[in-house]
Amino acid sequence: MPLSTVAKRGLLITFEGIEGCGKSTQVRLAEKALLQRQIPCVVTREPGGTPLGEAIRDILLHAKDLAMTPLSEFLLFSAARHQHVTAVIHPAIEASQTVLCDRYYDASTVYQGFSRGVDLNFIHRLNQAVTDKLVPDLTFILDVPVAIGRQRILQRKTAREPDRIESYDLSFHESVRQGYLQLAESEPTRICVVDAGQPVTEVHAAIMKLLLPKLTNED
Amino acid sequence: MPLSTVAKRGLLITFEGIEGCGKSTQVRLAEKALLQRQIPCVVTREPGGTPLGEAIRDILLHAKDLAMTPLSEFLLFSAARHQHVTAVIHPAIEASQTVLCDRYYDASTVYQGFSRGVDLNFIHRLNQAVTDKLVPDLTFILDVPVAIGRQRILQRKTAREPDRIESYDLSFHESVRQGYLQLAESEPTRICVVDAGQPVTEVHAAIMKLLLPKLTNED
Repeated sequence: MPLSTVAKRGLLITFEGIEGCGKSTQVRLAEKALLQRQIPCVVTREPGGTPLGEAIRDILLHAKDLAMTPLSEFLLFSAARHQHVTAVIHPAIEASQTVLCDRYYDASTVYQGFSRGVDLNFIHRLNQAVTDKLVPDLTFILDVPVAIGRQRILQRKTAREPDRIESYDLSFHESVRQGYLQLAESEPTRICVVDAGQPVTEVHAAIMKLLLPKLTNED
Repeated sequence: MPLSTVAKRGLLITFEGIEGCGKSTQVRLAEKALLQRQIPCVVTREPGGTPLGEAIRDILLHAKDLAMTPLSEFLLFSAARHQHVTAVIHPAIEASQTVLCDRYYDASTVYQGFSRGVDLNFIHRLNQAVTDKLVPDLTFILDVPVAIGRQRILQRKTAREPDRIESYDLSFHESVRQGYLQLAESEPTRICVVDAGQPVTEVHAAIMKLLLPKLTNED
Protein backbone atom coordinates (compact mmCIF):
# COMPACT_ATOMS: atom_id res chain seq x y z
CA MET A 1 0.00 0.00 0.00
CA PRO A 2 1.50 3.41 -0.92
CA LEU A 3 2.39 5.71 1.99
CA SER A 4 -0.15 8.32 0.94
CA THR A 5 -2.96 5.82 1.45
CA VAL A 6 -1.61 4.70 4.81
CA ALA A 7 -1.48 8.30 5.99
CA LYS A 8 -5.18 8.81 5.39
CA ARG A 9 -6.19 6.18 7.88
CA GLY A 10 -6.24 7.25 11.53
CA LEU A 11 -3.91 5.55 13.98
CA LEU A 12 -4.87 3.40 16.93
CA ILE A 13 -2.82 4.31 20.01
CA THR A 14 -3.36 2.22 23.15
CA PHE A 15 -2.40 2.86 26.76
CA GLU A 16 -1.82 -0.04 29.15
CA GLY A 17 -0.50 -0.67 32.63
CA ILE A 18 -1.45 -1.74 36.14
CA GLU A 19 -4.16 -0.03 38.17
CA GLY A 20 -3.00 3.40 39.31
CA CYS A 21 -0.31 3.74 36.64
CA GLY A 22 -1.84 6.97 35.36
CA LYS A 23 -3.34 5.80 32.06
CA SER A 24 -6.48 7.88 32.20
CA THR A 25 -4.56 11.05 33.05
CA GLN A 26 -2.09 10.47 30.23
CA VAL A 27 -4.84 9.72 27.71
CA ARG A 28 -6.50 13.04 28.55
CA LEU A 29 -3.20 14.94 28.33
CA ALA A 30 -2.38 13.33 24.98
CA GLU A 31 -5.85 14.23 23.67
CA LYS A 32 -5.38 17.85 24.73
CA ALA A 33 -1.95 18.00 23.09
CA LEU A 34 -3.26 16.53 19.81
CA LEU A 35 -6.26 18.82 19.67
CA GLN A 36 -3.97 21.81 20.22
CA ARG A 37 -2.09 20.66 17.13
CA GLN A 38 -5.39 20.32 15.17
CA ILE A 39 -5.00 16.55 15.02
CA PRO A 40 -8.52 15.07 15.21
CA CYS A 41 -8.74 12.38 17.83
CA VAL A 42 -11.19 10.23 19.76
CA VAL A 43 -10.70 9.10 23.35
CA THR A 44 -12.24 5.80 24.36
CA ARG A 45 -11.72 2.98 26.82
CA GLU A 46 -12.07 -0.72 27.49
CA PRO A 47 -14.14 -2.28 28.79
CA GLY A 48 -16.71 0.26 27.70
CA GLY A 49 -16.75 2.74 24.88
CA THR A 50 -20.25 1.67 23.76
CA PRO A 51 -23.55 1.28 25.66
CA LEU A 52 -23.13 -2.51 25.51
CA GLY A 53 -19.51 -2.19 26.66
CA GLU A 54 -20.47 -0.01 29.60
CA ALA A 55 -23.14 -2.55 30.65
CA ILE A 56 -20.50 -5.29 30.49
CA ARG A 57 -18.06 -3.02 32.38
CA ASP A 58 -20.58 -2.82 35.21
CA ILE A 59 -20.55 -6.60 35.52
CA LEU A 60 -16.77 -6.89 35.17
CA LEU A 61 -15.71 -4.21 37.59
CA HIS A 62 -18.52 -3.67 40.02
CA ALA A 63 -20.10 -7.04 40.67
CA LYS A 64 -17.74 -8.24 43.39
CA ASP A 65 -20.06 -10.94 44.62
CA LEU A 66 -20.31 -12.70 41.26
CA ALA A 67 -18.14 -15.78 40.93
CA MET A 68 -16.45 -15.54 37.53
CA THR A 69 -14.05 -18.00 35.89
CA PRO A 70 -11.00 -16.49 34.15
CA LEU A 71 -12.38 -17.72 30.81
CA SER A 72 -15.81 -16.13 31.42
CA GLU A 73 -14.04 -12.90 32.35
CA PHE A 74 -12.06 -13.02 29.10
CA LEU A 75 -15.19 -13.70 27.04
CA LEU A 76 -16.96 -10.73 28.63
CA PHE A 77 -14.04 -8.45 27.80
CA SER A 78 -14.04 -9.89 24.28
CA ALA A 79 -17.78 -9.28 23.80
CA ALA A 80 -17.29 -5.65 24.82
CA ARG A 81 -14.20 -5.42 22.61
CA HIS A 82 -15.90 -6.59 19.43
CA GLN A 83 -18.72 -4.08 19.85
CA HIS A 84 -16.14 -1.39 20.57
CA VAL A 85 -13.94 -2.15 17.56
CA THR A 86 -16.97 -2.42 15.26
CA ALA A 87 -18.92 0.62 16.43
CA VAL A 88 -16.19 3.02 17.57
CA ILE A 89 -12.58 2.24 16.65
CA HIS A 90 -12.96 1.11 13.03
CA PRO A 91 -15.30 3.97 12.04
CA ALA A 92 -12.97 6.50 13.69
CA ILE A 93 -9.78 5.33 12.01
CA GLU A 94 -11.60 5.05 8.70
CA ALA A 95 -12.58 8.71 9.20
CA SER A 96 -8.88 9.58 9.65
CA GLN A 97 -9.17 10.18 13.37
CA THR A 98 -6.50 9.14 15.82
CA VAL A 99 -7.97 6.82 18.45
CA LEU A 100 -6.52 7.04 21.96
CA CYS A 101 -7.72 3.94 23.77
CA ASP A 102 -7.40 3.27 27.50
CA ARG A 103 -6.68 -0.49 27.39
CA TYR A 104 -7.13 -2.87 24.45
CA TYR A 105 -6.44 -6.55 23.80
CA ASP A 106 -3.00 -6.54 25.47
CA ALA A 107 -4.90 -6.18 28.75
CA SER A 108 -6.58 -9.55 28.14
CA THR A 109 -3.26 -11.20 27.25
CA VAL A 110 -1.83 -9.96 30.54
CA TYR A 111 -4.74 -10.07 33.00
CA GLN A 112 -6.59 -13.18 31.86
CA GLY A 113 -3.62 -14.89 30.19
CA PHE A 114 -0.37 -14.32 32.10
CA SER A 115 -2.07 -13.65 35.44
CA ARG A 116 -5.23 -15.78 35.47
CA GLY A 117 -4.02 -18.70 33.36
CA VAL A 118 -6.27 -18.68 30.29
CA ASP A 119 -4.37 -20.37 27.45
CA LEU A 120 -2.32 -17.72 25.63
CA ASN A 121 -2.86 -19.20 22.16
CA PHE A 122 -6.60 -19.21 22.76
CA ILE A 123 -6.43 -15.57 23.85
CA HIS A 124 -4.35 -14.64 20.81
CA ARG A 125 -6.78 -16.28 18.39
CA LEU A 126 -9.85 -14.76 20.00
CA ASN A 127 -8.17 -11.34 20.20
CA GLN A 128 -7.57 -11.56 16.46
CA ALA A 129 -11.16 -12.63 15.77
CA VAL A 130 -12.82 -9.89 17.81
CA THR A 131 -10.57 -7.11 16.54
CA ASP A 132 -10.56 -8.29 12.92
CA LYS A 133 -6.75 -8.33 13.36
CA LEU A 134 -6.59 -4.61 14.10
CA VAL A 135 -3.20 -4.20 15.78
CA PRO A 136 -2.43 -0.90 17.57
CA ASP A 137 0.00 1.36 15.71
CA LEU A 138 1.64 2.22 19.02
CA THR A 139 1.11 0.98 22.55
CA PHE A 140 2.35 2.70 25.71
CA ILE A 141 2.85 0.63 28.82
CA LEU A 142 2.96 2.99 31.77
CA ASP A 143 5.18 1.12 34.17
CA VAL A 144 5.16 1.75 37.93
CA PRO A 145 5.86 -0.45 40.94
CA VAL A 146 2.68 -2.01 42.31
CA ALA A 147 3.02 -0.21 45.65
CA ILE A 148 3.00 3.18 43.92
CA GLY A 149 -0.02 2.26 41.79
CA ARG A 150 -1.89 1.15 44.89
CA GLN A 151 -0.96 4.36 46.74
CA ARG A 152 -2.29 6.46 43.84
CA ILE A 153 -5.61 4.61 43.84
CA LEU A 154 -6.00 5.22 47.57
CA GLN A 155 -5.16 8.92 47.17
CA ARG A 156 -7.69 9.60 44.41
CA LYS A 157 -9.82 12.64 45.15
CA THR A 158 -12.93 10.83 43.96
CA ALA A 159 -12.61 8.33 46.79
CA ARG A 160 -14.44 5.10 46.01
CA GLU A 161 -14.15 1.45 46.92
CA PRO A 162 -11.57 -0.42 44.80
CA ASP A 163 -13.35 -2.19 41.92
CA ARG A 164 -13.42 -5.98 41.52
CA ILE A 165 -10.12 -6.21 39.66
CA GLU A 166 -8.39 -3.53 41.76
CA SER A 167 -9.36 -5.63 44.80
CA TYR A 168 -7.15 -8.56 43.80
CA ASP A 169 -4.10 -8.94 46.04
CA LEU A 170 -0.71 -7.34 45.47
CA SER A 171 0.87 -10.51 44.05
CA PHE A 172 -1.77 -10.50 41.30
CA HIS A 173 -0.93 -6.93 40.37
CA GLU A 174 2.78 -7.74 40.48
CA SER A 175 2.17 -10.57 38.01
CA VAL A 176 0.27 -8.12 35.79
CA ARG A 177 3.19 -5.69 35.87
CA GLN A 178 5.64 -8.46 34.95
CA GLY A 179 3.26 -9.67 32.24
CA TYR A 180 3.20 -6.25 30.61
CA LEU A 181 7.01 -6.05 30.68
CA GLN A 182 7.26 -9.52 29.14
CA LEU A 183 4.80 -8.52 26.41
CA ALA A 184 6.82 -5.38 25.67
CA GLU A 185 9.94 -7.47 25.17
CA SER A 186 8.13 -9.68 22.68
CA GLU A 187 6.91 -6.76 20.54
CA PRO A 188 9.51 -4.00 20.93
CA THR A 189 8.54 -2.20 17.72
CA ARG A 190 4.92 -1.66 18.70
CA ILE A 191 5.13 -1.46 22.50
CA CYS A 192 6.95 1.32 24.36
CA VAL A 193 7.50 1.07 28.10
CA VAL A 194 7.33 4.48 29.77
CA ASP A 195 8.55 5.04 33.34
CA ALA A 196 5.31 6.21 34.91
CA GLY A 197 6.91 6.74 38.30
CA GLN A 198 8.08 10.15 37.02
CA PRO A 199 6.02 13.33 37.53
CA VAL A 200 2.93 13.51 35.30
CA THR A 201 4.37 16.18 33.00
CA GLU A 202 7.51 14.16 32.37
CA VAL A 203 5.50 11.03 31.57
CA HIS A 204 3.44 13.13 29.16
CA ALA A 205 6.58 14.52 27.53
CA ALA A 206 7.98 11.02 27.09
CA ILE A 207 4.75 9.88 25.46
CA MET A 208 4.52 12.85 23.09
CA LYS A 209 8.13 12.41 22.03
CA LEU A 210 7.24 8.94 20.76
CA LEU A 211 3.73 9.73 19.56
CA LEU A 212 4.14 12.91 17.50
CA PRO A 213 6.57 11.48 14.95
CA LYS A 214 4.07 8.68 14.27
CA LEU A 215 1.26 11.16 13.70
CA THR A 216 3.19 13.56 11.54
CA ASN A 217 4.88 10.85 9.48
CA GLU A 218 8.28 12.09 10.53
CA ASP A 219 9.44 8.70 11.76
CA MET B 1 -14.80 -46.98 30.40
CA PRO B 2 -16.92 -49.82 31.85
CA LEU B 3 -20.68 -49.35 31.81
CA SER B 4 -20.91 -49.38 35.60
CA THR B 5 -18.70 -46.27 35.75
CA VAL B 6 -20.72 -44.51 33.06
CA ALA B 7 -23.93 -45.17 34.98
CA LYS B 8 -22.64 -43.37 38.07
CA ARG B 9 -22.27 -40.06 36.26
CA GLY B 10 -25.44 -38.00 35.92
CA LEU B 11 -26.77 -37.26 32.45
CA LEU B 12 -27.06 -33.90 30.76
CA ILE B 13 -30.42 -33.53 29.02
CA THR B 14 -31.03 -30.34 27.06
CA PHE B 15 -34.23 -28.80 25.70
CA GLU B 16 -34.17 -26.56 22.65
CA GLY B 17 -36.58 -24.86 20.28
CA ILE B 18 -37.96 -21.54 19.13
CA GLU B 19 -39.58 -19.06 21.51
CA GLY B 20 -42.99 -20.30 22.64
CA CYS B 21 -42.26 -23.96 21.84
CA GLY B 22 -43.01 -24.98 25.43
CA LYS B 23 -39.47 -25.77 26.69
CA SER B 24 -39.89 -24.37 30.17
CA THR B 25 -43.18 -26.23 30.71
CA GLN B 26 -41.67 -29.49 29.49
CA VAL B 27 -38.56 -29.09 31.64
CA ARG B 28 -40.76 -28.67 34.70
CA LEU B 29 -42.93 -31.67 33.81
CA ALA B 30 -39.85 -33.83 33.21
CA GLU B 31 -38.41 -32.77 36.57
CA LYS B 32 -41.64 -33.70 38.33
CA ALA B 33 -41.75 -37.08 36.59
CA LEU B 34 -38.12 -37.86 37.50
CA LEU B 35 -38.55 -36.84 41.12
CA GLN B 36 -41.62 -39.06 41.37
CA ARG B 37 -39.36 -41.93 40.29
CA GLN B 38 -36.73 -40.94 42.91
CA ILE B 39 -34.30 -39.89 40.17
CA PRO B 40 -32.32 -36.93 41.54
CA CYS B 41 -32.26 -34.05 39.09
CA VAL B 42 -31.38 -30.40 38.74
CA VAL B 43 -33.24 -27.92 36.56
CA THR B 44 -31.28 -25.04 35.11
CA ARG B 45 -31.30 -22.72 32.13
CA GLU B 46 -29.24 -20.69 29.70
CA PRO B 47 -28.42 -17.92 29.69
CA GLY B 48 -28.49 -17.88 33.45
CA GLY B 49 -28.17 -20.62 36.02
CA THR B 50 -25.55 -18.68 38.01
CA PRO B 51 -25.53 -15.13 39.43
CA LEU B 52 -23.10 -14.12 36.65
CA GLY B 53 -25.27 -15.84 34.05
CA GLU B 54 -28.39 -14.06 35.25
CA ALA B 55 -26.58 -10.69 35.07
CA ILE B 56 -25.54 -11.52 31.49
CA ARG B 57 -29.10 -12.70 30.75
CA ASP B 58 -30.34 -9.25 31.76
CA ILE B 59 -28.10 -7.68 29.11
CA LEU B 60 -28.91 -10.27 26.44
CA LEU B 61 -32.67 -10.34 26.77
CA HIS B 62 -33.73 -7.08 28.28
CA ALA B 63 -31.45 -4.41 26.92
CA LYS B 64 -33.33 -3.69 23.70
CA ASP B 65 -31.64 -0.38 23.11
CA LEU B 66 -28.11 -1.80 23.14
CA ALA B 67 -26.58 -2.30 19.71
CA MET B 68 -24.98 -5.75 19.76
CA THR B 69 -23.02 -7.50 17.01
CA PRO B 70 -23.83 -11.20 16.48
CA LEU B 71 -20.28 -12.06 17.62
CA SER B 72 -20.63 -10.01 20.81
CA GLU B 73 -23.94 -11.72 21.47
CA PHE B 74 -22.30 -15.13 21.02
CA LEU B 75 -19.43 -14.19 23.35
CA LEU B 76 -21.87 -13.07 26.04
CA PHE B 77 -23.75 -16.38 25.82
CA SER B 78 -20.39 -18.17 25.94
CA ALA B 79 -19.24 -16.27 29.04
CA ALA B 80 -22.46 -17.24 30.81
CA ARG B 81 -22.13 -20.81 29.54
CA HIS B 82 -18.62 -21.37 30.89
CA GLN B 83 -19.63 -20.18 34.35
CA HIS B 84 -22.73 -22.37 34.16
CA VAL B 85 -20.88 -25.52 33.08
CA THR B 86 -18.15 -24.96 35.68
CA ALA B 87 -20.29 -24.03 38.66
CA VAL B 88 -23.54 -25.92 38.04
CA ILE B 89 -23.58 -28.61 35.35
CA HIS B 90 -20.24 -30.36 35.96
CA PRO B 91 -20.67 -30.53 39.76
CA ALA B 92 -24.21 -31.88 39.35
CA ILE B 93 -23.36 -34.66 36.91
CA GLU B 94 -20.29 -35.57 38.99
CA ALA B 95 -22.71 -35.92 41.93
CA SER B 96 -24.80 -38.36 39.84
CA GLN B 97 -27.63 -35.92 39.30
CA THR B 98 -29.52 -35.66 36.03
CA VAL B 99 -29.31 -32.12 34.69
CA LEU B 100 -32.32 -30.81 32.77
CA CYS B 101 -31.14 -27.71 30.98
CA ASP B 102 -33.37 -25.21 29.17
CA ARG B 103 -31.08 -24.37 26.21
CA TYR B 104 -27.36 -25.14 25.84
CA TYR B 105 -24.75 -24.69 23.12
CA ASP B 106 -27.02 -25.82 20.27
CA ALA B 107 -28.86 -22.54 20.80
CA SER B 108 -25.71 -20.63 19.88
CA THR B 109 -25.12 -22.77 16.81
CA VAL B 110 -28.64 -21.98 15.65
CA TYR B 111 -29.30 -18.41 16.81
CA GLN B 112 -25.87 -16.82 16.35
CA GLY B 113 -24.59 -19.25 13.71
CA PHE B 114 -27.32 -20.31 11.29
CA SER B 115 -29.50 -17.23 11.86
CA ARG B 116 -27.10 -14.36 12.59
CA GLY B 117 -24.16 -15.49 10.48
CA VAL B 118 -21.32 -16.05 12.96
CA ASP B 119 -18.88 -18.55 11.43
CA LEU B 120 -20.05 -22.07 12.34
CA ASN B 121 -16.53 -23.47 12.78
CA PHE B 122 -15.71 -20.63 15.14
CA ILE B 123 -18.89 -21.37 17.11
CA HIS B 124 -18.11 -25.07 17.24
CA ARG B 125 -14.59 -24.49 18.55
CA LEU B 126 -15.67 -21.96 21.17
CA ASN B 127 -18.59 -24.18 22.23
CA GLN B 128 -16.09 -26.98 22.82
CA ALA B 129 -13.74 -24.69 24.75
CA VAL B 130 -16.35 -23.25 27.09
CA THR B 131 -18.05 -26.60 27.81
CA ASP B 132 -14.81 -28.57 28.12
CA LYS B 133 -16.33 -30.73 25.35
CA LEU B 134 -19.33 -31.71 27.49
CA VAL B 135 -21.86 -32.97 24.92
CA PRO B 136 -25.49 -33.51 26.04
CA ASP B 137 -26.49 -37.14 26.46
CA LEU B 138 -29.84 -36.33 24.90
CA THR B 139 -31.28 -33.19 23.34
CA PHE B 140 -34.95 -32.54 22.68
CA ILE B 141 -35.91 -30.07 20.01
CA LEU B 142 -39.50 -29.03 20.61
CA ASP B 143 -40.65 -28.22 17.12
CA VAL B 144 -43.62 -25.95 16.40
CA PRO B 145 -44.49 -23.61 13.54
CA VAL B 146 -43.37 -20.06 14.25
CA ALA B 147 -46.94 -18.75 14.19
CA ILE B 148 -47.96 -21.11 16.99
CA GLY B 149 -44.90 -20.21 19.09
CA ARG B 150 -45.69 -16.53 18.65
CA GLN B 151 -49.35 -17.08 19.60
CA ARG B 152 -48.30 -18.89 22.81
CA ILE B 153 -46.00 -16.04 23.83
CA LEU B 154 -48.84 -13.56 23.35
CA GLN B 155 -51.26 -15.73 25.36
CA ARG B 156 -48.97 -16.13 28.40
CA LYS B 157 -50.76 -15.33 31.62
CA THR B 158 -47.73 -13.45 32.89
CA ALA B 159 -48.15 -10.88 30.15
CA ARG B 160 -44.91 -9.02 29.48
CA GLU B 161 -43.26 -7.26 26.60
CA PRO B 162 -41.43 -9.68 24.25
CA ASP B 163 -37.72 -9.76 25.17
CA ARG B 164 -34.94 -8.60 22.84
CA ILE B 165 -34.61 -11.90 21.00
CA GLU B 166 -38.36 -12.63 20.95
CA SER B 167 -38.75 -9.22 19.28
CA TYR B 168 -36.87 -10.26 16.14
CA ASP B 169 -39.16 -10.63 13.13
CA LEU B 170 -40.91 -13.81 12.05
CA SER B 171 -38.41 -14.61 9.31
CA PHE B 172 -35.67 -14.68 11.94
CA HIS B 173 -37.64 -17.18 14.03
CA GLU B 174 -38.40 -19.23 10.93
CA SER B 175 -34.65 -19.43 10.22
CA VAL B 176 -34.12 -20.55 13.83
CA ARG B 177 -36.70 -23.30 13.43
CA GLN B 178 -35.10 -24.51 10.20
CA GLY B 179 -31.65 -24.29 11.85
CA TYR B 180 -32.76 -26.58 14.66
CA LEU B 181 -34.18 -29.10 12.17
CA GLN B 182 -30.95 -29.02 10.17
CA LEU B 183 -28.93 -29.59 13.35
CA ALA B 184 -31.15 -32.54 14.29
CA GLU B 185 -30.46 -34.14 10.92
CA SER B 186 -26.72 -33.81 11.45
CA GLU B 187 -26.76 -35.50 14.88
CA PRO B 188 -29.69 -37.95 14.83
CA THR B 189 -28.36 -40.09 17.67
CA ARG B 190 -28.19 -37.29 20.20
CA ILE B 191 -30.96 -34.98 19.02
CA CYS B 192 -34.66 -35.95 19.03
CA VAL B 193 -37.23 -33.73 17.36
CA VAL B 194 -40.54 -33.77 19.24
CA ASP B 195 -43.75 -32.42 17.69
CA ALA B 196 -44.52 -29.68 20.19
CA GLY B 197 -47.72 -28.68 18.41
CA GLN B 198 -49.47 -31.53 20.26
CA PRO B 199 -51.19 -31.01 23.62
CA VAL B 200 -48.77 -30.53 26.55
CA THR B 201 -49.42 -33.96 28.04
CA GLU B 202 -48.69 -35.69 24.75
CA VAL B 203 -45.45 -33.78 24.27
CA HIS B 204 -44.50 -34.78 27.82
CA ALA B 205 -45.33 -38.43 27.11
CA ALA B 206 -43.20 -38.37 23.95
CA ILE B 207 -40.27 -36.91 25.90
CA MET B 208 -40.52 -39.42 28.75
CA LYS B 209 -40.68 -42.32 26.32
CA LEU B 210 -37.27 -41.31 25.01
CA LEU B 211 -35.80 -40.10 28.30
CA LEU B 212 -36.62 -42.89 30.77
CA PRO B 213 -34.73 -45.67 28.94
CA LYS B 214 -31.61 -43.43 28.99
CA LEU B 215 -31.92 -42.88 32.72
CA THR B 216 -32.65 -46.45 33.67
CA ASN B 217 -30.05 -47.93 31.31
CA GLU B 218 -32.69 -49.92 29.51
CA ASP B 219 -31.73 -48.68 26.08
